[in-house]
Amino acid sequence: MLPANLPRYQQRVEQHLQSVINQLPRTDERLLSAMSYSLLLGGKRVRPFLVYSCGTLLGASLTDLDGPAAALEALHSYSLIHDDLPAMDNDDLRRGKPTCHKAFDEATAILAGDALQALAFDILSHHPYQQVGAPAVLQMIQTLARAGGYAGMCGGQAIDLAQTNQQTSLHQLEQMHRLKTGALIENAVELAWLCSPERQSADKEHLLQFARALGLAFQVQDDILDIESDTQTLGKPQGSDSKANKATYPALLGLEPAKAKAQQLYQDALNALSKLPYNTDELRSFAQYIIERRF
Amino acid sequence: MLPANLPRYQQRVEQHLQSVINQLPRTDERLLSAMSYSLLLGGKRVRPFLVYSCGTLLGASLTDLDGPAAALEALHSYSLIHDDLPAMDNDDLRRGKPTCHKAFDEATAILAGDALQALAFDILSHHPYQQVGAPAVLQMIQTLARAGGYAGMCGGQAIDLAQTNQQTSLHQLEQMHRLKTGALIENAVELAWLCSPERQSADKEHLLQFARALGLAFQVQDDILDIESDTQTLGKPQGSDSKANKATYPALLGLEPAKAKAQQLYQDALNALSKLPYNTDELRSFAQYIIERRF
Repeated sequence: MLPANLPRYQQRVEQHLQSVINQLPRTDERLLSAMSYSLLLGGKRVRPFLVYSCGTLLGASLTDLDGPAAALEALHSYSLIHDDLPAMDNDDLRRGKPTCHKAFDEATAILAGDALQALAFDILSHHPYQQVGAPAVLQMIQTLARAGGYAGMCGGQAIDLAQTNQQTSLHQLEQMHRLKTGALIENAVELAWLCSPERQSADKEHLLQFARALGLAFQVQDDILDIESDTQTLGKPQGSDSKANKATYPALLGLEPAKAKAQQLYQDALNALSKLPYNTDELRSFAQYIIERRF
Repeated sequence: MLPANLPRYQQRVEQHLQSVINQLPRTDERLLSAMSYSLLLGGKRVRPFLVYSCGTLLGASLTDLDGPAAALEALHSYSLIHDDLPAMDNDDLRRGKPTCHKAFDEATAILAGDALQALAFDILSHHPYQQVGAPAVLQMIQTLARAGGYAGMCGGQAIDLAQTNQQTSLHQLEQMHRLKTGALIENAVELAWLCSPERQSADKEHLLQFARALGLAFQVQDDILDIESDTQTLGKPQGSDSKANKATYPALLGLEPAKAKAQQLYQDALNALSKLPYNTDELRSFAQYIIERRF
């Protein structure tokens, strides 16, 4: 079941990203097209949803949340462009469309990724916040820089590349996912929390627990779909993980235990939510959507 | 003539960068080695010098200036790694040593660049400033994100790639340099100014004029050295611009008029300094060093 606000938040972040792109000068049309192509190609917008949903729960305003939602999506979008490059995962398809280096060229794709990373910090630092003071904005930038950098996403991708064709333990696989995708998903709830006018540190801890479990559940489900779904539904070639000799949960655990693992993580996510003194129905239904999705 | 403080500031920023690297977790040794290799490979450290020299002129403390100096060098270092990639300028040598993708591999080089960009924002946002408040730190991040992104350095590199093998006008060449390298050199003086406790906007304007002229003088001199110097002195292959069919000042203007242009820009830089109510001897001697250097 789709959370009622998911399409609304997807549309909201896309409109905001479009307006950010529209405000850029026409310095180089080709580079701008490549950035816009990758940024506005669609996608589930998991990180923006978490920013909006957690943020409103904590009393932050939607217009304040536009900043971190758009910044996170710009950072995520850069990482997908670079991960798809020939020297990295060498993927031709992303969300059913040619990857950035296929639609443009490799140099433009590298630069589009680089410029989108800078744009993430540009958006986060320039956003016209109403209820968020400079110290909290600075904290947002601090956490994003760390989640997106060597000790987070970039380090995770390096581990992922190093693990390809290697024997990998369950612990190593989990460590890789926690950095490669988990760090940004956790950052989504942290940025939302930093936008909240009356921040309680207990809330942050419970939300981070939720995000940690949800992020990993998402990855386990991704591995399962790589086996059980088909190329058209996925928007990328089915079976690409095993073809690329990547470690996956089904490969390490077996398919049924992997499904049980996803269910366990889903329950962990719900348990974390139950500790929050708010109505968390929307986040519960989002967790269900993540675990039941077919693409 | 070498400015007296140049070796001191070079050493200072290198020590600070080394301590930043030492504090990173051992998430992925290979990625960390690649980052460290490119960051600590040496170089003239033009941007850190400008941060320290302009900053102390304006009353900022050296320990506060360590943050922007190191952040700028991390950002500059990432841009060199990505510019050298096979899909971009395809260079094998940088500062007399193998480029990052030659010393490691292409995927690691892409990731090292990505991680160094994030590290720049990490350093700038986490630095323990003594005299700089959160609003000014936020402004530093805003200007760095713009100078390093689409409307600055990345856009300039895109124009550079598009101009290769094309007829280029003097105006287009200048526009490319102003973005590709000028934006970060101007940002160096702006970050220094933002670290100053009693900021006067007139000072900023004069320093930006100085940086603009100096940045372009640096590029014209680079083009001249590509013809007149030799590979060993340069640390990269002599004649590589003309081999790569890149537009240069000597190619567009002729060698002697290009030298006259460099001299004119040097004078423009000195004129801008003369408007400042401070002792600018160090910056004057740095401008002279830039214009008279042989590598």
